Amino acid sequence: MHTFQDPLRRAITTHGDAEALVCGDVRHDYDTTVDRCRRLAAGLLALDLPGGPLRRGDRVAIIAANCHRYIETYLAIPAAGFVLVPLNSRHTDHELRYAAEDSAARVLVTDRVPSPLDDEFEWVIRIPDDYEALLDAAGPSDDPLPADVFPDDLAETDLAGLFYTGGTTGAAKGVMLTHRNLLANAWSTFTWSELGPDDRYLVVSPLFHAAGTVAVLASVWMGSAEVILPAFDPTAVLDLFERERITITLLVPTMLAATTDEQIRTPRDVSSLRMLTHGASPATLALLRRAADTFADAELLHLYGATETSPVATALRHEERLLDTPVGKSCGAPVIGVDIAILDPEGGRLPAGEIGEVGIRGANVMQGYWNKPEATAAALTDGWYRSGDVGRVDDHGHLFLVDRSKDMIVSGGENVYSTEVEDALASHPLVAEVAVIGVPDERWGEAVHAVVVLREPATDPDALAAELLAHARETIAGYKVPKQIEITSDPLPKSGAGKILKRTLREPHWDGHDTAIV
Amino acid sequence: MHTFQDPLRRAITTHGDAEALVCGDVRHDYDTTVDRCRRLAAGLLALDLPGGPLRRGDRVAIIAANCHRYIETYLAIPAAGFVLVPLNSRHTDHELRYAAEDSAARVLVTDRVPSPLDDEFEWVIRIPDDYEALLDAAGPSDDPLPADVFPDDLAETDLAGLFYTGGTTGAAKGVMLTHRNLLANAWSTFTWSELGPDDRYLVVSPLFHAAGTVAVLASVWMGSAEVILPAFDPTAVLDLFERERITITLLVPTMLAATTDEQIRTPRDVSSLRMLTHGASPATLALLRRAADTFADAELLHLYGATETSPVATALRHEERLLDTPVGKSCGAPVIGVDIAILDPEGGRLPAGEIGEVGIRGANVMQGYWNKPEATAAALTDGWYRSGDVGRVDDHGHLFLVDRSKDMIVSGGENVYSTEVEDALASHPLVAEVAVIGVPDERWGEAVHAVVVLREPATDPDALAAELLAHARETIAGYKVPKQIEITSDPLPKSGAGKILKRTLREPHWDGHDTAIV
Repeated sequence: MHTFQDPLRRAITTHGDAEALVCGDVRHDYDTTVDRCRRLAAGLLALDLPGGPLRRGDRVAIIAANCHRYIETYLAIPAAGFVLVPLNSRHTDHELRYAAEDSAARVLVTDRVPSPLDDEFEWVIRIPDDYEALLDAAGPSDDPLPADVFPDDLAETDLAGLFYTGGTTGAAKGVMLTHRNLLANAWSTFTWSELGPDDRYLVVSPLFHAAGTVAVLASVWMGSAEVILPAFDPTAVLDLFERERITITLLVPTMLAATTDEQIRTPRDVSSLRMLTHGASPATLALLRRAADTFADAELLHLYGATETSPVATALRHEERLLDTPVGKSCGAPVIGVDIAILDPEGGRLPAGEIGEVGIRGANVMQGYWNKPEATAAALTDGWYRSGDVGRVDDHGHLFLVDRSKDMIVSGGENVYSTEVEDALASHPLVAEVAVIGVPDERWGEAVHAVVVLREPATDPDALAAELLAHARETIAGYKVPKQIEITSDPLPKSGAGKILKRTLREPHWDGHDTAIV
Repeated sequence: MHTFQDPLRRAITTHGDAEALVCGDVRHDYDTTVDRCRRLAAGLLALDLPGGPLRRGDRVAIIAANCHRYIETYLAIPAAGFVLVPLNSRHTDHELRYAAEDSAARVLVTDRVPSPLDDEFEWVIRIPDDYEALLDAAGPSDDPLPADVFPDDLAETDLAGLFYTGGTTGAAKGVMLTHRNLLANAWSTFTWSELGPDDRYLVVSPLFHAAGTVAVLASVWMGSAEVILPAFDPTAVLDLFERERITITLLVPTMLAATTDEQIRTPRDVSSLRMLTHGASPATLALLRRAADTFADAELLHLYGATETSPVATALRHEERLLDTPVGKSCGAPVIGVDIAILDPEGGRLPAGEIGEVGIRGANVMQGYWNKPEATAAALTDGWYRSGDVGRVDDHGHLFLVDRSKDMIVSGGENVYSTEVEDALASHPLVAEVAVIGVPDERWGEAVHAVVVLREPATDPDALAAELLAHARETIAGYKVPKQIEITSDPLPKSGAGKILKRTLREPHWDGHDTAIV
């Protein structure tokens, strides 16, 4: 029975003077961080909103680059009984507007300049000025966790956040995670990270993603420090490793590749790094070997999960010892507290070795999708979250992914749903047929690749490809726009039922790659 | 929602071939250990008992020295839906009989020779022969965790064990711990121990105590190895540190002292030891300094708790860095998931700095005392376990014990209740008044010390003291028998209300000691 208030309470009780958040020149201890959380929540409660004061369960959105204020917001909103809605700053206004309306978030916290999107909210708190003014106005308090700000009847089953992820149908879905879900992930974080009070965690992945916040609650509860990098840059990552004596971090493969290459070019003292975690998209064996050689003192650890599972489901410990073994190609074993099963289409459990849909069960599994009962019913059956990933487990519980039933591409740590990209291209008048697939890419893990059949032959294929990309960019975020467009005059390969055979399209690209999808 | 079945299931799913238990020449992996647990449980179910087969919730007692079979029993009994009753092998038959009758345990697992105590049970399984025969008879199974042995409707609120502790009224009390209670302790173990799959835990403290089993469930869940020492011996401990590359252990202060002295005399390679945990009774500052110097590569960690709290409540991390600071005299801060409060007699919370009774709250707190509703009501109020310890917390949540309201002595890791010893002495015809107190002792932490006023002067005080000790030994366990008897002709100091002023009796003994009680 824990809520976001428990890590905050322990932080001020047992490690108030320990370093909490480091971001640029900012260096706050836990007393300061919790005090700022209190003042943020008190300031939100005091807002004179058109619809009346914020009430329990109201949504508060954030669109911002990584910074200490992001983590304060992440902690304070749920602890105060509101629901956090972190939005993807890479999304187009079109996509953000959808999430704003779907969640009915009343307040936006953002570091962006004013834009028409602001009209979706009753109030906008701009970082840094409005934000700091709000905190200043709240003033001091004798009680660091006053019940009029952090209600004492908060329940572990209360909603803590809505986390929007792309959907196969084009519309994003708000993943409903409770306090219990996210704290279950904090507990499992202790088990795979061996986190201690001396740890210093570098936050590099975007905080609007589960990969960015994976260790936030665990760090606050434990009293580890978090050092925050506003935007990824391999030089900055390595400088922080050295200067801040970073002990643990999570990088998506594109970041891991760039950071490894930079360390090879210009070695820093990275002896403090004891654990180098990666996840969110497939890494090639070549990259993992290079990373293991380059960061030889660190344990390499592969995490697999989903926003829907808060997020961690499996972990491959000491991957650096396993690179030459079959297990090295797996996502590892379920973390403590989480069960994995391979399910048949009817939801029955398949035995080890058989291929089926990956089901995930545990206190970390979401309550469902906001406003989407059908999608919820399809995703949650008998307590299992049906991930849409296709895989198998071996006799030692290691999970091997073999395909994605969801037709999803993971590029640079972002999920890209093929249908959304296909829709964006197919709306161009010259496009007859289109299929979007993921192809291996050293930098992005997978790159978004489109195969297009035209209604009539192009006179200038290169110009047309550029035109199609510009067309797509109008409706979908930049990271979803194909890296390559392949224009063909042949019809796309299809099954007897007329379904495009994407596996046939993918095959020539993936041939010879060590790790197929993950 | 976890039970003992979850660590067992994960053990065979993800780390079946990892080393699990090492005891003497026995070296079992997790597949073997879980298989032996299954066969033990199946064998118990198949017993032709006079009262019919064992049923859900029936009690099974164990009296045995530390060995791999003890841990198998500890895991299998609760996982099969029975209730484990670990009995203290140092207790007299008189004391054991009480616990056997109070718990109504039907079966006894023991390594003792036959004795009249056996009559208390319907069946006795003697280690090793009966035990191994039972396992052999159960035979192989395709399903490692068959539901007819490990019921699939086991609930986290089901009772897992009754753990007998001494009581102030003389009668021992059976502490009722559920699956959830003990698994909550496993989760908190991850947070203070930073336990990982490469760890090798040395079990030295007796397994009939919470101090012995503190990390068993966490180790099974994680896949760490446990090396088991049947009986404490400092040479054996150090040889195992070196030979088995032990990384973490828990020693009670008497063991810590002897092990430290032996390492100073004959140094072994103890470089693998990363964490040296101590608890269960007070350690002197001199001992901690010597231990920190001698095991310089290890983190020194002080644990505080009670059987009633499954057991860990607070931990002082990196005590070796704090020995010269005020915090170094504390029991540390509450572990993650546990709350500590200082309570006034009415159960109200006192502010930092004020002295009162130590209250402990969390998923680790017992359900109550078996068959003792009044004692339960007194010990559990508003979700707090009232420990009977008296202390204060500082501004950083560190708990300092200042006295024990329960009038208890902790000697060599065992709780000794003064009244029980006083009763044993007072029943001698020559004793007029008696007071039993704890005095500082380098070996035992505290030694049991009796002050006796005689009805008539003794002609040979030494002979009489020996006679009183022999008298006490008839009814109470050897560790409870006073180490010294002080015979005085003065009446004992008393309060206006006639209460013996034990503090006055203790003062000359504790004067000049760095750590008063803890």
